[in-house]
Amino acid sequence: MLLEKINEPNDVKRLRAEELPLLAKEIRTFLLKKLSVTGGHVASNLGDVELTIALHRALSFPKDRLIWDVGHQSYTHKILTGRKDEFDTLRQRGGISGFSNPDESDCDAFISGHSSTSIAVALGFAEARELTGGNENIVAVIGDGALTGGLAYEALNNASRLKSNLTIILNDNHMSISENVGGMSSHLSALRTSTGYKGFKNDVEEGLRKVPGGEEMIRRIRRTKNGIKQLLIPGMIFENMGIMYLGPVDGHDMQAMVRVIRQALNVKGPVLIHVVTKKGKGYLPAEQNPALFHGIGPFDLSTGRPLDVSQKPTYTDVFSRAIVREAAKNEKIVAITAAMGLGTGLRGFKKKYPQRYFDVGIAEGFGTTFAAALAAGGMLPVFAVYSSFLQRGFDELIHDVAIGGYHCVFAVDRAGIVGKDGITHQGIFDISYLTMIPEFTVMAPKDRKELEAMIEFSIEKMNSPVAVRYPRGEAEDLSDAGLFGESDPIEYGRAEIISRSEGDHILLFAIGSMVATAEKVSQILKESGISVSVVNARFAAPLDTDLLTHETHGYDLIVTMEENVKSGGFGEHVLSVLEESGYRGEFLNISIPDQFVPHGSCDDLKKELGLDAVSVASTIIRQIENAKMNGGIS
Amino acid sequence: MLLEKINEPNDVKRLRAEELPLLAKEIRTFLLKKLSVTGGHVASNLGDVELTIALHRALSFPKDRLIWDVGHQSYTHKILTGRKDEFDTLRQRGGISGFSNPDESDCDAFISGHSSTSIAVALGFAEARELTGGNENIVAVIGDGALTGGLAYEALNNASRLKSNLTIILNDNHMSISENVGGMSSHLSALRTSTGYKGFKNDVEEGLRKVPGGEEMIRRIRRTKNGIKQLLIPGMIFENMGIMYLGPVDGHDMQAMVRVIRQALNVKGPVLIHVVTKKGKGYLPAEQNPALFHGIGPFDLSTGRPLDVSQKPTYTDVFSRAIVREAAKNEKIVAITAAMGLGTGLRGFKKKYPQRYFDVGIAEGFGTTFAAALAAGGMLPVFAVYSSFLQRGFDELIHDVAIGGYHCVFAVDRAGIVGKDGITHQGIFDISYLTMIPEFTVMAPKDRKELEAMIEFSIEKMNSPVAVRYPRGEAEDLSDAGLFGESDPIEYGRAEIISRSEGDHILLFAIGSMVATAEKVSQILKESGISVSVVNARFAAPLDTDLLTHETHGYDLIVTMEENVKSGGFGEHVLSVLEESGYRGEFLNISIPDQFVPHGSCDDLKKELGLDAVSVASTIIRQIENAKMNGGIS
Repeated sequence: MLLEKINEPNDVKRLRAEELPLLAKEIRTFLLKKLSVTGGHVASNLGDVELTIALHRALSFPKDRLIWDVGHQSYTHKILTGRKDEFDTLRQRGGISGFSNPDESDCDAFISGHSSTSIAVALGFAEARELTGGNENIVAVIGDGALTGGLAYEALNNASRLKSNLTIILNDNHMSISENVGGMSSHLSALRTSTGYKGFKNDVEEGLRKVPGGEEMIRRIRRTKNGIKQLLIPGMIFENMGIMYLGPVDGHDMQAMVRVIRQALNVKGPVLIHVVTKKGKGYLPAEQNPALFHGIGPFDLSTGRPLDVSQKPTYTDVFSRAIVREAAKNEKIVAITAAMGLGTGLRGFKKKYPQRYFDVGIAEGFGTTFAAALAAGGMLPVFAVYSSFLQRGFDELIHDVAIGGYHCVFAVDRAGIVGKDGITHQGIFDISYLTMIPEFTVMAPKDRKELEAMIEFSIEKMNSPVAVRYPRGEAEDLSDAGLFGESDPIEYGRAEIISRSEGDHILLFAIGSMVATAEKVSQILKESGISVSVVNARFAAPLDTDLLTHETHGYDLIVTMEENVKSGGFGEHVLSVLEESGYRGEFLNISIPDQFVPHGSCDDLKKELGLDAVSVASTIIRQIENAKMNGGIS
Repeated sequence: MLLEKINEPNDVKRLRAEELPLLAKEIRTFLLKKLSVTGGHVASNLGDVELTIALHRALSFPKDRLIWDVGHQSYTHKILTGRKDEFDTLRQRGGISGFSNPDESDCDAFISGHSSTSIAVALGFAEARELTGGNENIVAVIGDGALTGGLAYEALNNASRLKSNLTIILNDNHMSISENVGGMSSHLSALRTSTGYKGFKNDVEEGLRKVPGGEEMIRRIRRTKNGIKQLLIPGMIFENMGIMYLGPVDGHDMQAMVRVIRQALNVKGPVLIHVVTKKGKGYLPAEQNPALFHGIGPFDLSTGRPLDVSQKPTYTDVFSRAIVREAAKNEKIVAITAAMGLGTGLRGFKKKYPQRYFDVGIAEGFGTTFAAALAAGGMLPVFAVYSSFLQRGFDELIHDVAIGGYHCVFAVDRAGIVGKDGITHQGIFDISYLTMIPEFTVMAPKDRKELEAMIEFSIEKMNSPVAVRYPRGEAEDLSDAGLFGESDPIEYGRAEIISRSEGDHILLFAIGSMVATAEKVSQILKESGISVSVVNARFAAPLDTDLLTHETHGYDLIVTMEENVKSGGFGEHVLSVLEESGYRGEFLNISIPDQFVPHGSCDDLKKELGLDAVSVASTIIRQIENAKMNGGIS
């Protein structure tokens, strides 16, 4: 096994060039064996094995800085930098992360979980190197999907001023997470095949001839050029921005890549190497369905079928069906995704209403402004997006959606603890960043049926900006589960009273996923002889001030429960209303402490954060005991 | 006067073509006369007079949709759509806005105050038109400066899919607010002069020859192309993204522009017209100093000199000098601006330390990630940025700065009410969106000296992400002004006790600009026989929990005061700490109600919002009276 010789950074340099194809093969076998057990990002990591080996032949670690865009493509890099023995712990609490992270290894230059950051980061390192007189190499690896993000473009635009070298590897697998979209993608597609150029001139002229005045344009263009025919450089879009373009290069030919990378490192100024790879390379199920194998749980290695497929629908599934139902009723509804058609459950919508479906690329800022304008133009846009990614559209939510007051629906998926994707993906800020925006309605369902009802409500009953946030994972029907009875219909800004205590004067005021937890807490407390009322807030904004003002008199302890950071969250807002209403009892805020949350299983993380039913019950009991000592609770 | 004939939308179409130059002249005279009195955005509006007239000749209002990027360039559009008589009220409370706003006129398609939104908005309108079968024209006008923003690129990337027409006018004055930056800018610069192309092929080959391996590259490129020489279209960067490029066109030649615009409107699919204009056109002081005349107060028409130049330094001036002082002490300090070198006070820094100064274009997201990477590379970056614009970097603050824990300093200017720029520019959210980010320190100074101390502290004493927020306008020295005595030195997370009441048990806990207000409130209350303690919070995060826990016992009323929205703001966080500390007295949260704030003078707006000293004092007195009736305050 060659892999046995790879134990430390730079070990790969000691292999003979002829041995590298075998190493690549061993790495693929290793990755498949490990990932079929732990789950993880399969397709992208199978795709860049040779590219990573080539980079490690050309660079020295940890001196050189290699910056992976969305670091989930860095598994081979982890293997080559001494972390192969830790793959059994991948994405588990205390184990290695599924992304790049400098805390894990000094060979990881920067954290990266969100897309399109790598060129900006590399440029920061490069300018720092210029100012401090360093001589390390700096290389960014960015996928063609990540190039659809504006941050990547802002960085390209700034790169041209750089005097020293910066090497950008464009890892082009013509995929975002889904198929890639947009003009840049078409451009890359043309670059991939040199035949794309052959007919270029004719195509352009033919295209112009079809439009009114086109003939004149052709003549004018020719006149402007003074008849000089010029060499068309491939990668003009980069060359035009002052970035040298090299390629395309076969991303599975290591010798060719090492040569070009070495060449590029010697250029003063920014260079982009266009490397063409195949997602899922070497494993047929992943090659055939790279979107499924983007991020996947444990799977059967021989068939490629996911193991442990739950029969229960996820929240995403519930949204997926609800939005198709709504779209059938109202032809104004259009759906937007930022390269997450599969992840956000919009595939069904796309199939049924392709004209009304927009995959905008990894461009949440654009998706948000675009939604606002679609609404201004008379449509009813629904933007399905992960909580942590919508952070990219924060200003656009304020400036374009909320100030205009447009009726856009944000289906905020993966809200709360998301588990194994870890620190960059936890959806723990959205209640704070959405409720602080004036005119924004923010809801969260307690279960499957309530998500359906909220999607329906937000589309049919509202006429202003609204977000429905729901968690990753299975959506129980709590009334079926016997946890609750039938629900009341949604009313704007109204909470739902689930149970009233007949004994103690304690109220659990929970939102979203924490409502089911509250009910479990209630049962645990009952065993300790404590009875509590449970209210499902439903709305984080506007709060049910009526209930908070009039129905809370007589309570000794009010507990808020949410899966969001404390700062700016539901609990702080509730406390503010309670204070104004004259409530003077005890208060307890159960939320995520103001800290970042690492990767691990959702259950483990919630326990650590004190958000599971047992922890919450203990916290409440402690608070009661303290309060009794202070003479608070009667 | 031709202008007398312009009273309603489309009136301009009734003029004869020969009359248009005179109309343009009259509009310039009109604008200069009005703006020299009211102040406003001068340079951009003088630059696009002919362009706007040409657009109004080719389009019909309000049917067609004209979307101005950063609508401060739409004054002529306002004049041509029946708003000329309202220019005396420009940017004043109740008067017309300095930006586009659909609430003001149905000829304003969309709100726009922040940069780089117009193509995204136009694309939303265009897709809505396709789905609803409309036939209106849709035109976006975007400056070359705004093209440095990633949102514009995300939109360009999405535009190629459009089947029907979308016309993008690139209003190229080779200026952002300051000089424009980056590769795109150089590209446009090359386009501006056709000679830029002539030597293109030779330049490229010569460039390649200079780099190692360049000869081989040239040979390879030629081989790849199979020897086919191809026509190079100008505007390749747009053509490559599937957008037809027309131009460049002289932006002061109305006949030429009308022709090209009509041509463009007939094209199926997206077209970009490259129009070259001169900022400040027709008014020498503005032509010579367009940055000064970007946005300006009242000025002397004959000399171009600003009137009412205050002798007092602004907070920006204070920061400006402080950062140069710090940079002299520490060569690791680098400064970043997003096209606001003048506005944020970095011109002095640039002059003294040009190598350490980065104007990244209108790209706050990039500026933020770039700062994080510069810090990771060993530098100490200071990003000077307006509060409302930093919203564009929200995810980058979380993902790149805070998770990594990098020592980046954000000098957040224009925090709080900014006045005349209005709804899109109010800096009223930053306390909320910054304090919710874990690991982020957020400070606000009470006066000039404290800003100096905080800049020094955040640079010299800290080693993690930190923001100092300060308002627009004059910075008083409150100790000189006799309002306060000498200040204590800054201590991490510590508030400053300014005065202790010897009578009533009332505490004003204020932050930033509201500390001076608190002192005035204290004096007003004294006249009513009420004495209060005043504390300067200094830190919005972390709060001085020690003081809030131990020094608040015995108080009957604690009042928080901030210039930020209530939701997620300083007051809510303070309340949360007070509640946990067992404080059970009265509480009053003085902040901006959760609403958007229109344009007007800062003083008027603060009064309306109840943030001036008199209003706060009345609110406190009311609260005391209510509490007394309820038996609260002793």
